[in-house]
Amino acid sequence: MNGNLAAKLRGIHQATPRMLTKLTMEELNRPDAETFRQSEKFPLTLVLDNVRSALNTGSIFRTADALALEQLFLCGITATPPHREIFKTALGSTETVSWTHFDQAAAAIQQLRQAGYRVFALEQAQPRIWLQDFQPEPGARYAFVLGNEVEGVGAEALALCEGAIEIPQFGSKHSLNVAVAAGIAAWEFVRNG
Amino acid sequence: MNGNLAAKLRGIHQATPRMLTKLTMEELNRPDAETFRQSEKFPLTLVLDNVRSALNTGSIFRTADALALEQLFLCGITATPPHREIFKTALGSTETVSWTHFDQAAAAIQQLRQAGYRVFALEQAQPRIWLQDFQPEPGARYAFVLGNEVEGVGAEALALCEGAIEIPQFGSKHSLNVAVAAGIAAWEFVRNG
Repeated sequence: MNGNLAAKLRGIHQATPRMLTKLTMEELNRPDAETFRQSEKFPLTLVLDNVRSALNTGSIFRTADALALEQLFLCGITATPPHREIFKTALGSTETVSWTHFDQAAAAIQQLRQAGYRVFALEQAQPRIWLQDFQPEPGARYAFVLGNEVEGVGAEALALCEGAIEIPQFGSKHSLNVAVAAGIAAWEFVRNG
Repeated sequence: MNGNLAAKLRGIHQATPRMLTKLTMEELNRPDAETFRQSEKFPLTLVLDNVRSALNTGSIFRTADALALEQLFLCGITATPPHREIFKTALGSTETVSWTHFDQAAAAIQQLRQAGYRVFALEQAQPRIWLQDFQPEPGARYAFVLGNEVEGVGAEALALCEGAIEIPQFGSKHSLNVAVAAGIAAWEFVRNG
């Protein structure tokens, strides 16, 4: 899939060691908003099912910009731009990342599946694929469904997913922050793309 | 390194497909706080250099619990428990994750290097190792230094690092949220451990 971006990821190599120097904004060489909007994306949609915290939603916008994800589907009570708390953590990425609002995550998932997307819940569920075992199929488009901070992915949405992907966790607590989990899963998708 | 945890990660396999069902708290089978504190950890320390937002620090505590990281070093203005905003996002993980405060990140890094840790800044810098190329050396202990939300890793701390690790970014913005970046880098360490 996405030959150019994947090749870019494989093709970058370590420079010869010298004194560590932070990159300048120019050296970072980021595309401007318009160029980015029209550029190739990794074929991954994130579906946010009733995410309560607009700070988390803004942070996910920022991740979607950084990792060049296809789009966000914001469902149910998930806040949408313009929104003060989204702006606080999205830092301008609401201008570059495509998004659509749906009243119900189930409707978003149905639309994705009808369009041929492979849809997985990022959940602690059975049966699951462990994140490190997930390998995107070349040419296919994917969506990961992220749930509410307390309730997780809703039952109706979960029933419409092809499967669950789970981030292995070893700690005494029961979950990761939803924006952190989204970042980890999106990174794993991109690194294997 | 950490034979048991790494084997656990490799040894878990996908179950036979059936109706997706969320795991119960019992099925999650998390260790209690005391068992977790005494259990094996991945040999990764996160050094937080002047992290401004205590919400980010709390979220990093939660990640350190979930991914069983060795410890957090909280430096400079980085908030420390007990702290209302840390508690809000750490959700109890301040009770299970080891942490130490240092006035200066440079002192923390010096202590780590003297103890034989390999210390890398998570930064957009030259020369860099791209995150997907980073391979932990078996038996070695590592530390990743995370910088302030605006300034990044301070110059004095950066100069003491062995190298920089960079998360490839493709977007129009210049960075990821620090708690998301910490989660991605820690996950990559754990998945390759």
